[in-house]
Amino acid sequence: MAIVDVTVIPIGTESPSVSSYVADLHRILKEYEEKGEIRFQLTPMNTIIEGDLPVLFQVIQDIHESPFQQGIKRVATNIRIDDRRDKKSTMEGKLSSVQRQLEQ
Amino acid sequence: MAIVDVTVIPIGTESPSVSSYVADLHRILKEYEEKGEIRFQLTPMNTIIEGDLPVLFQVIQDIHESPFQQGIKRVATNIRIDDRRDKKSTMEGKLSSVQRQLEQ
Amino acid sequence: MAIVDVTVIPIGTESPSVSSYVADLHRILKEYEEKGEIRFQLTPMNTIIEGDLPVLFQVIQDIHESPFQQGIKRVATNIRIDDRRDKKSTMEGKLSSVQRQLEQ
Amino acid sequence: MAIVDVTVIPIGTESPSVSSYVADLHRILKEYEEKGEIRFQLTPMNTIIEGDLPVLFQVIQDIHESPFQQGIKRVATNIRIDDRRDKKSTMEGKLSSVQRQLEQ
Repeated sequence: MAIVDVTVIPIGTESPSVSSYVADLHRILKEYEEKGEIRFQLTPMNTIIEGDLPVLFQVIQDIHESPFQQGIKRVATNIRIDDRRDKKSTMEGKLSSVQRQLEQ
Repeated sequence: MAIVDVTVIPIGTESPSVSSYVADLHRILKEYEEKGEIRFQLTPMNTIIEGDLPVLFQVIQDIHESPFQQGIKRVATNIRIDDRRDKKSTMEGKLSSVQRQLEQ
Repeated sequence: MAIVDVTVIPIGTESPSVSSYVADLHRILKEYEEKGEIRFQLTPMNTIIEGDLPVLFQVIQDIHESPFQQGIKRVATNIRIDDRRDKKSTMEGKLSSVQRQLEQ
Repeated sequence: MAIVDVTVIPIGTESPSVSSYVADLHRILKEYEEKGEIRFQLTPMNTIIEGDLPVLFQVIQDIHESPFQQGIKRVATNIRIDDRRDKKSTMEGKLSSVQRQLEQ
């Protein structure tokens, strides 16, 4: 299991608003989540997705493709992968280990 | 007001665990927040900070500096800035405009 | 064709030096290049790779995997994808269109 | 001395082409370079800048500001900082230490 954090920026949108494109990504992610393949969370800056790495790469390709379906001609996608293999790493686990440090 | 999303990775830590470094960042951010200069939120992958851009740059320098205080010799910091000037942009506002799109 | 820019950071290396890991990535990329599947360029900060997007995703998975082969337990990989579909985009083409702007 | 790698993406440009904005950044960087404050290099994907960290933060603020001068209302800037303090790190030094590894 790995965790990724992704932003997909459509370029050439006329308007500075891109929330309709983000909503599209959300629908794609929802389908993957309903099949039990990933878990995800929308933050004000990006989308955080947890799952097996090969599935995550498939998901990233799908959401990167999404603005092109709306006629956009250029997309800038930014991905951070955090892949830890000495122990199971989950979104909640990462936050709670920081919390434990803060309480010491 | 702008929003930034920051990861600070200490390199050469011996252990794959970096939560103690993240806890340090959190303390620095807490101080800025208590002075009313920023608002921030910890996610499983990064720290999201909202504030005036010059303050945000100061905050980023401070948290980037933090692992060096613990003896780390190399730090890789990654920053995404989202700066929108046609309307006030807040962490909640960004999420709720996606929410509105999803409800349509 | 798309262009990506990738950094692969091994976490928990004891030393701040990571050039041996970068050299490993380079060998993997060289093999792909010799098969004519990609073109790539090493910069002081990252690796820039040009190719068809599905191939690029395969390459990224391979180079992300590489530090784990050397015993590293956690890897932070950062990827920027620039995917433009209204015209052929190459590494040289992007640089020369900036150059033309500068000469005006 | 640190090295940073920056992309500045104007959002809401109508056209997918952004080379005129990149040319603007280049002019700003050239001025800093002529004053001897930084060294920089344009790659097909980003701008790599070497200098003292406080200067680099100033430069990043300046180039992030640049598309707003052309009427753009939203800018997404992405920054990777590589800051190593156990030895002098230069753009050439980083590349040549990978080269030495490859020759072994």
